[in-house]
Amino acid sequence: MLLSKSFIPILKNNPSEAKIKSHQLMLRVGMIKQSSAGIYSWLPLGFKVMKKIESIVRQEQDKIGAQEILMPTIQSSEIWKESGRYDDYGEEMLRIKDRQNREMLYGPTNEEQVTEIFRSSYKSYKSLPQLLYHIQWKFRDEIRPRFGIMRGREFYMKDAYSFDVTDEDAFFSYNKFFLSYLRTFKRLSLTAIPMAADTGPIGGNLSHEFIILADTGESKIFTDKRIFDLTSDGTDLEKSSLEQMRKKYEQFYSVTDEKFNKEEFEKMVTEENRLITKGIEVGHIFYFGDKYSKAMDTAVDLPGGKKDFVKMGSYGIGVSRLVGAIIEAKYDEKNEIMKWPLSIAPYDIALIPMINKNDTSALEKANNINSVLIKHNIDAIIDDTDENYSSKIKKMNLIGVPYQIIIGKKSEGDLLEFKEAGLETQNLTLDKIIEIITKQKASN
Amino acid sequence: MLLSKSFIPILKNNPSEAKIKSHQLMLRVGMIKQSSAGIYSWLPLGFKVMKKIESIVRQEQDKIGAQEILMPTIQSSEIWKESGRYDDYGEEMLRIKDRQNREMLYGPTNEEQVTEIFRSSYKSYKSLPQLLYHIQWKFRDEIRPRFGIMRGREFYMKDAYSFDVTDEDAFFSYNKFFLSYLRTFKRLSLTAIPMAADTGPIGGNLSHEFIILADTGESKIFTDKRIFDLTSDGTDLEKSSLEQMRKKYEQFYSVTDEKFNKEEFEKMVTEENRLITKGIEVGHIFYFGDKYSKAMDTAVDLPGGKKDFVKMGSYGIGVSRLVGAIIEAKYDEKNEIMKWPLSIAPYDIALIPMINKNDTSALEKANNINSVLIKHNIDAIIDDTDENYSSKIKKMNLIGVPYQIIIGKKSEGDLLEFKEAGLETQNLTLDKIIEIITKQKASN
Repeated sequence: MLLSKSFIPILKNNPSEAKIKSHQLMLRVGMIKQSSAGIYSWLPLGFKVMKKIESIVRQEQDKIGAQEILMPTIQSSEIWKESGRYDDYGEEMLRIKDRQNREMLYGPTNEEQVTEIFRSSYKSYKSLPQLLYHIQWKFRDEIRPRFGIMRGREFYMKDAYSFDVTDEDAFFSYNKFFLSYLRTFKRLSLTAIPMAADTGPIGGNLSHEFIILADTGESKIFTDKRIFDLTSDGTDLEKSSLEQMRKKYEQFYSVTDEKFNKEEFEKMVTEENRLITKGIEVGHIFYFGDKYSKAMDTAVDLPGGKKDFVKMGSYGIGVSRLVGAIIEAKYDEKNEIMKWPLSIAPYDIALIPMINKNDTSALEKANNINSVLIKHNIDAIIDDTDENYSSKIKKMNLIGVPYQIIIGKKSEGDLLEFKEAGLETQNLTLDKIIEIITKQKASN
Repeated sequence: MLLSKSFIPILKNNPSEAKIKSHQLMLRVGMIKQSSAGIYSWLPLGFKVMKKIESIVRQEQDKIGAQEILMPTIQSSEIWKESGRYDDYGEEMLRIKDRQNREMLYGPTNEEQVTEIFRSSYKSYKSLPQLLYHIQWKFRDEIRPRFGIMRGREFYMKDAYSFDVTDEDAFFSYNKFFLSYLRTFKRLSLTAIPMAADTGPIGGNLSHEFIILADTGESKIFTDKRIFDLTSDGTDLEKSSLEQMRKKYEQFYSVTDEKFNKEEFEKMVTEENRLITKGIEVGHIFYFGDKYSKAMDTAVDLPGGKKDFVKMGSYGIGVSRLVGAIIEAKYDEKNEIMKWPLSIAPYDIALIPMINKNDTSALEKANNINSVLIKHNIDAIIDDTDENYSSKIKKMNLIGVPYQIIIGKKSEGDLLEFKEAGLETQNLTLDKIIEIITKQKASN
């Protein structure tokens, strides 16, 4: 892709209306554009990153056997009246009257809708368990939308729902999502820590938030440092292995301020292991048993002839929010270097030819290199503008292309000037560069 | 995938509320479920088909150099007041007041929003042409939603927009989309005919609808039969080649009833070539010059120092509607056989083992075959229920899996009972079956 043909409207300076670095950067490099308060359009650069995140989220849902569906954005108020949440939800719910004067709403979440789908589809324990997910736009009419897409009104979210016969089965489902979340965030190069959390308007009594550390985070967290050393490696998609994994995480005190208890914290965590800091919520999972199935009369026939309400959980990941959260976690604001993890970078590599009016040989060379890269499924952007060397590098650092090849007068023979964003230049052959990138891609 | 684990709630009979065959079939095999009037949830089977259609639409947009963005569903009324369409649009526009009492709306189309994105991004002719598209949910508050997702209220649509400096460039852009539409529908195994059309509320004076023939279609069409023999084969993405292609199509009289002129029809088409029938609109393209750019003051600097309003077109494909349209075109209602084109089938092949309580050897064999198919990227569904042979075949015919392998007592040695939906059984080796499917996939 030639930069001059791309729809990447870059601003010279940070926009003054943005208060946090993800919002600043996303506006500055043209990832998003505000449409109205808390509502954004995604331009090609931002869209590419979000789609790659979405794809990783999807793959990890599929791996635990969840099936993808797609529920509409506009819901009827009737199911919300059944569950009792229509009045509870308050002004954050965008309420709508259609032309027939029916009460509708823009879904902020989908517990009611998915319960209605289940109850009108299956009646027997034989059809359980079922894990369903969808990735869809939601709306939350925030009184003060802020921080760009981090706390916008229209946002893109993966939400999943589990249906089981017994609590025990339901915990198995819960733990599957727990594992899939750890795997998802790891593939996004994030260290997301599961923390015991309040259930809020979703309800239930078991819940974990997945939090990444960031100074600009809105959640205050209290944690045992040792939890950062844990991984989900070696966990199988099997009941006892998943239980062990969750226990391993739960042995360490780790909560957000809603659940914080000073005495408990100090008792359970020795002083040198205590960490009190800020974080960003990137995922949230809930187990709420029969809260919705009872209110919405959603039962299945059991083997003996009895009936019981299905046991449900719900599991969310903010896909659009993750774009901002990853910038908050990775952007080196001081040096103006964003380095997207290769798995979700808008481009794999930038080709930076030095172009003069009288000499386009470097651009030709860049085009030739690009033809080779395409054959190896490496997605390059060529900066074919006539800016100078340093402003081109600076631009690619902001866009966050993880690798760069500089093609100048000095570029002769087989060796190319190759660098990882923000690091020193190395002289490597194109074959070697392709090998590095291909290997890095395969590892994700 | 095992059928018993899938979320595919199949109904015994056609639902009485559905009037046309696509709506009947989609409800019957659990592709969709109505959420409220004209609003549907997509269950796994329907979702898979729609995603595959979306993916083909996307690839063909990318091939002509269009860049993908994503605009929000909720728009501010302000830009619609600028263009003058806020009052014109009538009650089909879903109007919303947010908690701050701001006038918002659920976008039925995006000319205003994309114009606003362009004007706040670029100011010079140097940044043109630009082709942008997005695939997003839209809402049209139909007074009488009907025919399932064919005429629903919330619908999924690809809409693209072109920005050019001159009319001539703009026609070049228009023709690129013309070509991409022919290619898209061909890959969906549809014969879609471009027909001169009215521009309606979008405006402008050049427009084509792409129509497929179907008895249940809402558009009456008048056409010269010979247009069905044309293809876009051999057309290059280059100005004169594209012009020739469009001329080739435009030489034949072919219009919907809005544009119909009896005298002209009879003069231009000899009696044996006249075809008067019904069709379904699956795509619509418009050229409207500076209609929006003028109203919204969207101009660029020209080389000489002057300014001019950009010339725009818009280009829509109804992605969710296509699912229904393809069923209307392909479903053999009498024999209850739906055969999805392999490129968009929910599964490539069905494995149909005969299972008794005392004998699960056929199921084991099916699982073994599936392991081999997975290695060849062939997506199979295994009907592991204990129903009889004929009801299993019937079910897979309805679901529309294009190929089937029947694994019964007779299945011995290397030969398998293989059939294309609705055709006779052949005895083939698994290798041969894999070859047939792989070849068929590669051809798309």
